[in-house]
Amino acid sequence: MIKTDILIIGAGPTGLFTVFEAGLLKLKTHLIDALPQPGGQCAEIYPKKPIYDIPGFPEILAGDLVNNLMEQIKPFEPGFTLGERAQTIEKLEDDTFVVTTNKGTKHNAPVIAIAGGLGSFEPRKPPIPNIDLYEDNGVAYIIRDPEVYRDKRVVIAGGGDSALDWSIFLADVASEVTLVHRRNEFRGALDSVERVAELSKLGKVNLITEAEVKELKGDEKLTAVGIRHKTEGDIHFETDYFIPLFGLSPKLGPIADWGLEIEKNAIKVDNSYDYQTNVPGIYAIGDVNTYKGKLKLILSGFHEAAIMCQSAYQRIFPDKKYVMKYTTVGGVEGFDGTKKEAKKEVVKSIN
Amino acid sequence: MIKTDILIIGAGPTGLFTVFEAGLLKLKTHLIDALPQPGGQCAEIYPKKPIYDIPGFPEILAGDLVNNLMEQIKPFEPGFTLGERAQTIEKLEDDTFVVTTNKGTKHNAPVIAIAGGLGSFEPRKPPIPNIDLYEDNGVAYIIRDPEVYRDKRVVIAGGGDSALDWSIFLADVASEVTLVHRRNEFRGALDSVERVAELSKLGKVNLITEAEVKELKGDEKLTAVGIRHKTEGDIHFETDYFIPLFGLSPKLGPIADWGLEIEKNAIKVDNSYDYQTNVPGIYAIGDVNTYKGKLKLILSGFHEAAIMCQSAYQRIFPDKKYVMKYTTVGGVEGFDGTKKEAKKEVVKSIN
Ligand SMILES: Cc1cc2nc3c(=O)[nH]c(=O)nc-3n(C[C@H](O)[C@H](O)[C@H](O)COP(=O)(O)OP(=O)(O)OC[C@H]3O[C@@H](n4cnc5c(N)ncnc54)[C@H](O)[C@@H]3O)c2cc1C
Ligand SMILES: Cc1cc2nc3c(=O)[nH]c(=O)nc-3n(C[C@H](O)[C@H](O)[C@H](O)COP(=O)(O)OP(=O)(O)OC[C@H]3O[C@@H](n4cnc5c(N)ncnc54)[C@H](O)[C@@H]3O)c2cc1C
Repeated sequence: MIKTDILIIGAGPTGLFTVFEAGLLKLKTHLIDALPQPGGQCAEIYPKKPIYDIPGFPEILAGDLVNNLMEQIKPFEPGFTLGERAQTIEKLEDDTFVVTTNKGTKHNAPVIAIAGGLGSFEPRKPPIPNIDLYEDNGVAYIIRDPEVYRDKRVVIAGGGDSALDWSIFLADVASEVTLVHRRNEFRGALDSVERVAELSKLGKVNLITEAEVKELKGDEKLTAVGIRHKTEGDIHFETDYFIPLFGLSPKLGPIADWGLEIEKNAIKVDNSYDYQTNVPGIYAIGDVNTYKGKLKLILSGFHEAAIMCQSAYQRIFPDKKYVMKYTTVGGVEGFDGTKKEAKKEVVKSIN
Repeated sequence: MIKTDILIIGAGPTGLFTVFEAGLLKLKTHLIDALPQPGGQCAEIYPKKPIYDIPGFPEILAGDLVNNLMEQIKPFEPGFTLGERAQTIEKLEDDTFVVTTNKGTKHNAPVIAIAGGLGSFEPRKPPIPNIDLYEDNGVAYIIRDPEVYRDKRVVIAGGGDSALDWSIFLADVASEVTLVHRRNEFRGALDSVERVAELSKLGKVNLITEAEVKELKGDEKLTAVGIRHKTEGDIHFETDYFIPLFGLSPKLGPIADWGLEIEKNAIKVDNSYDYQTNVPGIYAIGDVNTYKGKLKLILSGFHEAAIMCQSAYQRIFPDKKYVMKYTTVGGVEGFDGTKKEAKKEVVKSIN
């Protein structure tokens, strides 16, 4: 059982910054995310695109914002359970909660901060009969560790940035990369489209367009796919892996059944105070919550996280009074023993 | 009469970021600040100190945050009335407001955003009889334009960073710099204290410690000061300027009489929706407002500004419906003709 002070569900920008605000209050944090990497929408959907409305950054790439946040929270040593979906919640007699993931990992904390954004990112699966049977046995919807594919044969399906970028990346890793797409046209960054065209000419990526993977073959483990080509008919194609990259779509998912008040697919919270849900001890911050006038902006998640942590502190230490100190004045004391602080003024005589 | 869409009182971080959020909604803004420069507390009190809790910046100097915000809002060409205090407000028949400064400058807008922080920064004046008579006639509490002192004789009083830093700066500008301080000990950055000690040794700053300026002399214009020294008694000292730098202290000031609900020296607002005050059309954001759970943090002012601008838009265009677009998707179109936007995706065939 993983134990922490604030269990954060969702490692998007809101969840990440919560680590920092909690850390200033000396509260420990642990994050769960269905994705294999932190950063939420910023990391998964548009890491290489610029954001213009993060205060103080005239322009910052979404991926860089995530990197900066990771560096900012480092002193507070957050724990991570990545690649797992928070599935069930249970309240214990001592008023703490236990959250269990789809893989069975258990987490215990007195405060839950749901920073689940638009929901847990789940892959859009192609409509192939029995595809479930091959999951983790040759079929993957997300590439967690590219090294898995070293010197293997890989078939990727899709026509967007993910399919393009992973074809480019795996061309140097896998023994054979085949990219299958329903149309001739790809939709993505110009660079990526051009690079795939080049790799195809060099024979480093097999391009099969106007075609779809329709069948999976093999006993237990995948050994081949059946491809239906618009003009050439059915093709039997041997491969070690099939990776359909048709995008991830967020689903509020299991959290919708946790007994929280839901409105417009989001969790209702008390924005006149602390962003708590109808269940005391469970807060919802960032894109996942809703209230009158809500803006689904990154900067709002930051504010909500700061306010929420103050209330969490009161719940955890009902008898202590927290006196806020500006970071400029009090510095930042990490759990890792580091300390950042402003240069002190001196009182010094001159003569 | 200066006309704008949102008149912002206070050019601290909150007021500055309001320009950006308003600009995204195509609303024009104008800022009034009592200080000669934008940046509020960050620029006036601790420009060279690091802040650690601005999301996305593991560390940023307060002065750099202000510079970044100024760059971020540049495309929206905000107007500035600096060095003047917003004094009175009046509501016209057309439901717009007129705000007049202590120097008589008039501003007209349908929406007022008070981002006044802890209040208008007013100098702490030394208790010298008739000092008021010499204001703008040889006595200044804030240095607006250092060039005024070129080749003049200057007496500075004070023992903190401002007195130290301006003595250093003016040593190269004025013909003669004299620093008068009540004690031998100065309180400030180590660098600054050491530099003044050095300049004193080089004869570039006259240091008179354990002494106070007690008298101002001259017909209309200042010509000399009377200094009382602890051991040496009274000294008559000729000078063109006397600059007492005993710090600025913020005072809510005239805004307290504008008919707004005040609590704990701050303006009460509706935080369950749009940070509007009890007077429709007047909002209060950032350090100047109060509500249950309020945190006087820079990051909270940013969120409040974003929410407030949406409500202002509804007030100005009651019949239009604003559809929010992410800056990443819609880009930023400046009023100056500039346009920032993410590189577009392409749809391109490969064969
Ligand atoms: C193309 C695009 C452009 C954008 N541009 C801007 C912009 O310019 N400015 C701006 O402010 N915002 C922009 N946004 C919105 C911004 O990305 C979101 O506001 C922000 O990501 C919300 O952060 P969050 O941390 O609340 O949620 P998210 O970033 O959505 O992160 C939530 C995380 O929670 C995880 N999760 C959810 N449920 C579970 C569960 N049960 N178990 C485990 N994990 C779970 C998800 O996998 C996800 O990683 C843009 C969004 C997109 C898609
Ligand atoms: C030493 C110190 C360290 C700090 N450290 C941190 C930190 O680490 N993190 C953090 O988040 N915050 C910190 N703060 C607080 C932070 O600076 C404030 O939260 C922030 O400046 C508030 O911004 P604002 O724009 O709301 O108000 P201010 O910055 O106070 O700006 C308000 C402006 O309004 C002007 N004004 C007011 N009334 C009038 C009027 N009638 N007419 C004209 N002008 C007027 C004032 O002159 C002022 O310039 C610190 C503050 C100090 C003093």
